[in-house]
This record gives sequence, structure tokens and C-alpha cells, in this order.
Amino acid sequence: MAKERKRKKHDSNEKETPKNIAKRLKGIAEAVVNDIKKGNDPEFVTQQRGRSNVEFDEKKGTLQLGDRETTRTFLNVGHARKFMQTMLVTAKAHDYLSQNKTASIREIYYELKHTVPNTKENTFEGQTESDAVIVDLEHSVDTIREKLNLHANPKGTLYGDITLKDRMHHNDKFNCAKLGRGGWSIMSRLEPEEIEIVSCDAKYVLVIETEAMYERLVEERFAQKNKCVLVSTGGQAARGTRRLIHRLHSERKLPVVVFTDGDPYGWYIYSVIKQGSMALAAHSDFMACPEAKYVGMTLDDIETYGLKEVTEKMKDGDIKRAKEMIDYPWFQNKPWQRQLKKAVSEKVRIEQQALANKSLEFVATEYLPEKIKKKDFLP
Amino acid sequence: MAKERKRKKHDSNEKETPKNIAKRLKGIAEAVVNDIKKGNDPEFVTQQRGRSNVEFDEKKGTLQLGDRETTRTFLNVGHARKFMQTMLVTAKAHDYLSQNKTASIREIYYELKHTVPNTKENTFEGQTESDAVIVDLEHSVDTIREKLNLHANPKGTLYGDITLKDRMHHNDKFNCAKLGRGGWSIMSRLEPEEIEIVSCDAKYVLVIETEAMYERLVEERFAQKNKCVLVSTGGQAARGTRRLIHRLHSERKLPVVVFTDGDPYGWYIYSVIKQGSMALAAHSDFMACPEAKYVGMTLDDIETYGLKEVTEKMKDGDIKRAKEMIDYPWFQNKPWQRQLKKAVSEKVRIEQQALANKSLEFVATEYLPEKIKKKDFLP
Repeated sequence: MAKERKRKKHDSNEKETPKNIAKRLKGIAEAVVNDIKKGNDPEFVTQQRGRSNVEFDEKKGTLQLGDRETTRTFLNVGHARKFMQTMLVTAKAHDYLSQNKTASIREIYYELKHTVPNTKENTFEGQTESDAVIVDLEHSVDTIREKLNLHANPKGTLYGDITLKDRMHHNDKFNCAKLGRGGWSIMSRLEPEEIEIVSCDAKYVLVIETEAMYERLVEERFAQKNKCVLVSTGGQAARGTRRLIHRLHSERKLPVVVFTDGDPYGWYIYSVIKQGSMALAAHSDFMACPEAKYVGMTLDDIETYGLKEVTEKMKDGDIKRAKEMIDYPWFQNKPWQRQLKKAVSEKVRIEQQALANKSLEFVATEYLPEKIKKKDFLP
Repeated sequence: MAKERKRKKHDSNEKETPKNIAKRLKGIAEAVVNDIKKGNDPEFVTQQRGRSNVEFDEKKGTLQLGDRETTRTFLNVGHARKFMQTMLVTAKAHDYLSQNKTASIREIYYELKHTVPNTKENTFEGQTESDAVIVDLEHSVDTIREKLNLHANPKGTLYGDITLKDRMHHNDKFNCAKLGRGGWSIMSRLEPEEIEIVSCDAKYVLVIETEAMYERLVEERFAQKNKCVLVSTGGQAARGTRRLIHRLHSERKLPVVVFTDGDPYGWYIYSVIKQGSMALAAHSDFMACPEAKYVGMTLDDIETYGLKEVTEKMKDGDIKRAKEMIDYPWFQNKPWQRQLKKAVSEKVRIEQQALANKSLEFVATEYLPEKIKKKDFLP
């Protein structure tokens, strides 16, 4: 049985504005002050993390964090240090929001790190400690770190007929099909209050794992010919990039089609975009795209397109990963079970760029358009 | 004694246009055909690589490849396979140039990989084989792979008052200070025939190792306040990014100031930008910026700015790297010798983002402007 829910909930209709988030942070501090004034042991409540509290929500089609909570009390020797750290991060995030500042999670770590006067105790011993506290805080006030004005490193590129406006930067308006072949460098934070999607003349979003395949599709004018927007993730998608894909999906109702290497690593990139990740299960509603579809590469492509000579042997780590994924609830459907079992038994992988074996253009003139037209997708 | 120079040299005043490069490639093929017609053993001449043929040119201030050459003959069992590979890559690069196509080095590998009919012999066993042949070819025709229409993966971002034009993409013209806070995603190839620097209203180029520090400086409006252009490398600079920095330096005569973490890895990023790298010694004239200066982080910053609490212990690999660098000819000057020896003896490192310990703004309002004003640089 889950413990009685102790986190003070805000009105669920409350907008996620910087002002409201700051108010929630202040609420935490005020509760602590009140506890102290009353002579009570101050406490901080957050959600339990880890796989045991992660559930796959069949209806939503995304990973969600369960209801189990953790309470930390100041007068517990095992909790006191983390309690102190939580208060430091809460106050600093409140400062950022009030001053319209943002910081990377490495910066807040460095900003808060110091030796407590007259002791040998450091506030933080490493960034893992401050990172953990940031996650606690996100869960405690039911938001994502981007709305606490915190961010991880940026990665990823955007190209196509989409106009963005940066309200925090002279209201710059720019169309991402008009920046030459480079494209726009996706920011680490991409909140609607700051970056507005002004217009988007595209029929779908194509998410691409490798930067080199992105450059191929730009050169082939794929976005123009197929009326789509290209997003390259450069491997596992960074949070800013996931947030952008989510917003294109939810605000603009654009279908999302994902194109990765044909191996468990690529397939997992897809599943994180679609269902969310276990580590960030609480944030799926901000990040996931449960309607996303997978266009390739599949292991069946090897036979269909005669690519046997350009496959690669799967590494042991990949095979182990495939075996784990077979058991994940969100891979419980026939096509993915078949694909993952094929990976385990045949032990080969196929890269996106291996399609160049047909010709450089092949991916843009045949492979993608035909598969997308026929809706030859994995779910 | 170096062997007599056998590579057929083109006129050194010849422009590096796609047409001229294609002509040089055709020259290689024609020479082979002529040899066959005359009943001679066809040969291919390129430059010897490896550290033994790399020299530090004190006058130019860059690494250069020496004069030693390697000749490969087709009728030598030890050379025949590589000879065949060289001909495949030469023909394919010629195709790209004639058809105005570009390809990643992974794509050309996949495009050319196949089993030779009626044998079990593959043209290439792995990308390392085709990569090596590409380098041979670059050296043989005295150019860089970008001018063979080949490229590696892109990485890096550009921000500031600089207007670029992409002649291969509707002549798009865009100013990199007007793309919101994201900036322009630097392409893998950045040749003047394709990407023109239309105008640049900046006094210098600031090259930054980490994406997060780049975002900090954008948020602080550092480029506007200091009239500079920001280039983030995201670690070791990709070739496209090095080419851009080189061009800003050589075409626009902009001073280049480099800002990395204070550790051997960061210092080596700087030295590759300034003097070139050993692996690409032949291309320093296209890539290096011998006048570049190093602004930080230095190990002296730790004391100067009171950052002792936010240093990190150096890893064994870093210390080993520092010891190697002490012997490099291009680090033979007092300030760098002092810095490297300090690293070896004190075994601490300091990150760019550690400056957040003073305040988020500190790097932008005090650290960089003061050091740059005083020219408090390492050479």
C-alpha cells in the first residue's frame, strides 16, 4: 500500500509560469520555517524514484512515476546533510526564477559548493549529489528542471519550414529552413514562455539519430520535397531536443517519425522519445510523444533492401540490452518482440548510413518516402 | 635523406576549386592508365605520415608534414589491396565533385563496401581502411578532404554579429546574433566557395570548450557587450569548426582567443586550434591559427580568484598527458612549461564552470573582460 500522500499539492489547473513555480519553492521554505517556529522537526517530501516506483501507463502510453513518497526530516542524522542540500538548491532556484537567470546543473553545483565555515564539511562532494537534489525538487513541486530555470547541456539541430521566436532575445524571429544547410542549434531549455513556435508548415517531424544522416537529408532537400521538419538528436536526445519534439507533437499536432540505426541503442533512443525514460518517468507528460512511430532501421530492412554486405556484428552489450528490452512492458507487442528476438538470435546490426550502399540518394528518394507513404512503421 | 620527391605537383598558384581538385584526381587515374598501357607497374605516391614525418615549423608556428613520400605499386602483393581501395575512393570522390554531392566519410565507406564478384574478398573490412585511403588521397593531391567533398560529423555552434551566406542553399543570408539564443549549428564542411562570410562586426573570436559555458555567455550578452563572436566546440573542435575559426582569422583578420577548462585536455584543444594536430599536420595551412591566444583556465586562476574549494583532482591520464606535452616543441616556452609542470606537481584541474562559484555573471563581467583587456594570455 502506498503511504498517505503528504506532498502539498498545488492546484492542478495552476499554470507552470516562473512566478507560480517560484511560489511553490517558497512554499517549501515557509513550511520549514513554520515547523521550526512551532518546535517541530522540519520535513521535506518528495516522490520515491527507482524502478520499483516506475509504471508503464497503458492508457497514456508513457512511463509514469508511481505515488510512493519519501519524507526527509532535518533532525535525522541520516537525512540532515541532504536536507541542507535541498534547502540550498531550493533557495538558489528561487533566486534564478526571481532574477530571470538560468543555469546549467553543473553551474548550480559550483555556485553552491563551499566548505561550511568552521567545519571541514563541504556542502556538496560532487555533482551527483546536487543532481539528485534537483530531481527531488522537481518531484516535490511537480515540474521539470527547465521550469526551475535549470538545464543540462544542449545537443541537437533543427531544420525545416518552422519559424521560432525567442522572447528573451530581442523577439528574434527566424525560419529554420533559411539558415543555410547548418540549421538551428537547439537550446538546452525550450519552454513556451520563452521560445514560441510561431508557424510551422510541415506535415510531420522526422527525428534522426546521427548528425551525418541529418546532413544527408538536408543536402537531398528532403524537408522541402516531403514537407517535414528535421530534428537531429546526435545520439540519445538531450532534454531540450525532447522538449521541442514533444511541443511540435502536442502544440502543432504533428506526427513524429523516428529514424535511428537498427540496433538496441537506436531503438532505445526511439522508446525514450515515445514513452519517456525510467529516470525521468515523472516528466513524461512534458517530454514524451506516445503517438510517435518508428520508420527504421529494422533488421528486416537488411533482406528487403539487400544490405547483407554492410551489416555489422552486434556487440555483447547490444545483445544484453536487447534481452532486457524484450521484458519491458512498453515493448510488449508483436512487431517489437519479433525485432528484438531477431537481434538476439542473428546478432547483426545495421546503421542508417549503410543505406549509402545503394546510393547516396537512396535514403531520401526511396527508403524513407516509400516507408512513410505505406506507413510501414513499427509501433 | 628524404627520397626524391615523386608526387606530381600541381601549380602552387592553382586555385582549390572543385573543378581543379577533380582534375588532379583525374590525373592520378590517367597516370595509372598510361602505366598499364605501357606495360609498366602502376604506382601511387603519397606522403609518409606518422610522428617521424611531422615537424614543428617555428617560422609558421604550426605543425607541418615533412617531405618523405611513400610509393605504392599495384604488382606488389603487399600493396595491391590498398591500391585497389585508393582507386575506388579516387573515382568516387571524382563523382562527388562532378555531381556537386558531398558525403560523410562513413557514407563513402558504405557506398564502396562490397564483396568483389566471384571472390570472398571485401573491398573494405572496416571504416579505418577507407579513412586511411582518404588521408592518402588528401596528401597525394595536396588538399583537405572537405575539398574532395568529404566530411566528418559536424559539431559546434556559432553566435554573434556575423552574417553568412550559403551559396548552395538559396543564397540564404543570416546573421548569427538574430537566431535567438540557440545560434547557428556549424556545418561539417565550411569551404569559401559554398559558405561566404558576408560581414562580421566583431573585434575578436572567443572559442569556448563547453556548450554550457557558451550558453552562459549568450545569456550574459557577452558577445554584444564585448563585440565578439562566440564559437563553442563541444570538446575537441570538429574539422568544420576549426575551418571556420581559421577563416575568421585569415579572411577577416580577427584575433582568436581560446577559453577551455584548466587541464591538459583543454590545453590540447587550444594547441590543435593554434598549431594544428599531428594527425592532420599536412593541413595546418587550412586549419591552424598560429596567432591564437589562450585566456584560461590556468592553474594560477585558482589562487588569483580564490577557487581552491572548486578544483578537482587530476586523473592519472591527465597527468600522463601533461608529461607528454612538456616535451612537445610547440609548448617550449616559459609560461606553458610552468603551467604543465604545475599540473604534474599539484595534480589539480579547474573547470570553466567552476567560476560560477563566484557568481553566475562573474565569468562574463569580470574574469574574461579583465583578462582580455590586460592581454593576460598564455602564448
